[in-house]
Amino acid sequence: METNTIFPKGDKLTNGYFTGDAFLKPLLARDKNNDFVIGSVTFEPGARTNWHTHPKGQVLIVTEGQGFYQEKGKPARIIKKGDVVNIPENTEHWHGAAAEIGMIHIAITHFKDDVNVVWLQPVSAEEYGEVNKNNKP
Amino acid sequence: METNTIFPKGDKLTNGYFTGDAFLKPLLARDKNNDFVIGSVTFEPGARTNWHTHPKGQVLIVTEGQGFYQEKGKPARIIKKGDVVNIPENTEHWHGAAAEIGMIHIAITHFKDDVNVVWLQPVSAEEYGEVNKNNKP
Repeated sequence: METNTIFPKGDKLTNGYFTGDAFLKPLLARDKNNDFVIGSVTFEPGARTNWHTHPKGQVLIVTEGQGFYQEKGKPARIIKKGDVVNIPENTEHWHGAAAEIGMIHIAITHFKDDVNVVWLQPVSAEEYGEVNKNNKP
Repeated sequence: METNTIFPKGDKLTNGYFTGDAFLKPLLARDKNNDFVIGSVTFEPGARTNWHTHPKGQVLIVTEGQGFYQEKGKPARIIKKGDVVNIPENTEHWHGAAAEIGMIHIAITHFKDDVNVVWLQPVSAEEYGEVNKNNKP
């Protein structure tokens, strides 16, 4: 990845809902006009979220590198710098870097009541390996 | 500006509410989860919006270059790559590039009912010149 990134990398995510090294730089807090949070998430190569859902959806804007977005039961989609992903509500999915290429995305994560994410199980090494095998850079 | 930008430049804005050369690449349309539009706006050096307001506010995320954000009656603020601006509702303001440096920002523009912007008068050459004189790069 370029060193000339847009945002600082932020702090390493240690909440247990990521595999590998992922970092979060918060960009905007929830307030009366913005019923969401915005952050920049940096995934080192191999890093990814757990499977999870958002009760009112999420928008990803990829600003650097390349990775994957996959909804449960569907093929993974390669996402790269400049791509926008409009994630529907209550849809089990994961996103993260490719095994050998890092990725940075902005995430706009909507709240429904006071919940914006429901975390589920990790993306297993087998699941992740399969996606990478089927989507060689 | 770097040529390795995140998004395509999009189409030149010819709606009459910009001074100079500005371009819009739409990134996300309004839908049931996203009560806003998202776009990437490229301002060539010297380009800026008219004065305007947003009935439910707007968030800017600067992805390249440098420019200004000014609310009516207040000093202009220099904004540059990595900066986030949380624009309040019904607040007269403008944004745009510096006279000699271009700027690109993502804009997340909220709707209130079906309106997301109210356009006003141009930023005059005098107003713009004053801001640039007071904020030399």
